[in-house]
Amino acid sequence: MEALQNGARGDADDEEDESARAGAEGARVCLAEVRAAAKRISAWIHRTPVLTSHALDAMAGRQLYFKAENLQKTGSFKARGACNAVFREKELNPACGGVVTHSSGNHAQAVAYAAKCAGMGCSVVVPRGTPRVKCDAIQGYGADLVFCNPTPTARQETCATIARETGWSVIHSSDNYDVMAGQGTIALELLEEVPDLDALVVATGGGGMLGGVAMTTRALSPNCQVYAVEPQGKELAESLKAQERLWPEPSTFLNTVADSIRLRAVGPLAFPVICKSVNPHVFTVTDDQMIDGMRITFERLKQVVEAASGAGVYAALNLIGEAQPQAQKIGVVLCGGNVDLDALPWITPSNTY
Amino acid sequence: MEALQNGARGDADDEEDESARAGAEGARVCLAEVRAAAKRISAWIHRTPVLTSHALDAMAGRQLYFKAENLQKTGSFKARGACNAVFREKELNPACGGVVTHSSGNHAQAVAYAAKCAGMGCSVVVPRGTPRVKCDAIQGYGADLVFCNPTPTARQETCATIARETGWSVIHSSDNYDVMAGQGTIALELLEEVPDLDALVVATGGGGMLGGVAMTTRALSPNCQVYAVEPQGKELAESLKAQERLWPEPSTFLNTVADSIRLRAVGPLAFPVICKSVNPHVFTVTDDQMIDGMRITFERLKQVVEAASGAGVYAALNLIGEAQPQAQKIGVVLCGGNVDLDALPWITPSNTY
Repeated sequence: MEALQNGARGDADDEEDESARAGAEGARVCLAEVRAAAKRISAWIHRTPVLTSHALDAMAGRQLYFKAENLQKTGSFKARGACNAVFREKELNPACGGVVTHSSGNHAQAVAYAAKCAGMGCSVVVPRGTPRVKCDAIQGYGADLVFCNPTPTARQETCATIARETGWSVIHSSDNYDVMAGQGTIALELLEEVPDLDALVVATGGGGMLGGVAMTTRALSPNCQVYAVEPQGKELAESLKAQERLWPEPSTFLNTVADSIRLRAVGPLAFPVICKSVNPHVFTVTDDQMIDGMRITFERLKQVVEAASGAGVYAALNLIGEAQPQAQKIGVVLCGGNVDLDALPWITPSNTY
Repeated sequence: MEALQNGARGDADDEEDESARAGAEGARVCLAEVRAAAKRISAWIHRTPVLTSHALDAMAGRQLYFKAENLQKTGSFKARGACNAVFREKELNPACGGVVTHSSGNHAQAVAYAAKCAGMGCSVVVPRGTPRVKCDAIQGYGADLVFCNPTPTARQETCATIARETGWSVIHSSDNYDVMAGQGTIALELLEEVPDLDALVVATGGGGMLGGVAMTTRALSPNCQVYAVEPQGKELAESLKAQERLWPEPSTFLNTVADSIRLRAVGPLAFPVICKSVNPHVFTVTDDQMIDGMRITFERLKQVVEAASGAGVYAALNLIGEAQPQAQKIGVVLCGGNVDLDALPWITPSNTY
């Protein structure tokens, strides 16, 4: 399904199969592509601020730099990758009238936003039972909603069917080189402001942001170590060690409070990029630890963030010493702020998730 | 008590009585003093960002500019006025070893912070029963806590006793010209970034911020109308109309969700400044309206703010047309972000306040 989704992008250069494409990632996800993405999306994307806090620095015993993607268009970093992929689609394939994706979360809003910016049609496949507030946000950007059964397979199949029938291109949430290049612009901006970071921690779901950010960081600032932060059960470290995707197919969802990083497996296109650029020490965090990081971010940075952002904050505050005790300047991506304000997880018992 | 508190500042120029001082406010709260305050405090205070949101602009049908004082040192704008007053105290009276104030809220943290910056001692009088978290925050800046009975009179008397015994100066939370000049720097910064505001809405408690901001705005941008937003029961409009403080003495606390603006009466030093510079149309908001504005700020701006900030947001979104239908560019001060995250008011029924 991954190959189909990417093949459906309609990019004339992308006729090769998935594994060949994965092998060619050196050419497709490189600093030049990230710089091109930054140029392509700059008018539609916020250059988000880098926040700091003396109180958090004191708690960490290090200097922390928070890239506030919760303040990004659509409320998460996903707008970067979606805009890059959708705008590039339009450049390469001007006859293509629209895009289609499946996601009930941040990527859905991001693609709907990007399509609106590009003047393209957009269909978003969401599982039946998706909360009304999420559907409203997607439709608010003018996208059509298509409901399907709530399984990963049904979502992918419905998406593929729409793409076939309409000729529209599928924009996968992470396993897409243009999406990865778009997410890489986070690191481009952060390292422009803080060029001498010792480490950068990135909460990881499908791996698109991790791949884009790690590749960019490695190119610009090779001494800065990029670490993945994962929910329990993902077991990224084992796949990194084996240099092989050990997850079962199709990928399942983890039972985690951080719904934006619940996809268990890193995608096949992102994985080789990550293997090349990410420190093999993975930080694994529990729900309670993510909630702790999330709450501290509300309290000290006064920023509304998702639990996945809390994962990064927790790791920067408490875990970085495990891997790099001497690290002084730590970057953290506050990946998004689309949170259910009626069910903040330190108020709602976490066993309801 | 107000005169005593200000007299206790130890400023050699301030021997006159309260009403004479109030009459001389033209000399003491002027643009030159605000500019001097900006210079005095700049190394210790954040220049806070001005946030915008297309979604909120669309809801308002106007352009809104949010001055994010929730991101200020100590979590509220109070750090500006406290730093200006404490640092000026030290300039004028180098022998004075410390400062004292009474407040269980944002002003207490702000004075404790300012005293720490100035290398001065600090005592804060708080009512018995003040939540532990607030006491911890004040002590976190190195201040001593002094507990007293939970009445406005007991707080003032305890404060005056400490000042008498120690020779330390009392820093009142709003009824102090140096505090007002410090708060005026909010408008200085905002109007530098958005010089052509049509209106500026300010949530109002004791009136120190309203006075400083309105005076500064009137001097810099006379076409910009400054409006007070008040909780129900304050009845500022009646006093403004009479050009006389109609509130009973001593001032009482309003029963409002917005604890940082619960002081009913505007102080005697701030009042004449406000009469001269504030539009007589006052926006009165209910608890539910403030909570609505607060929640929208979490949701759309991703900013953690207090209910008092929500009051301004609600007024800018829904009420400005009552007074100035043609206004296009509206400034809003997000006055603070020190909120009890375990009791967000849209989750906790508001009848528990």
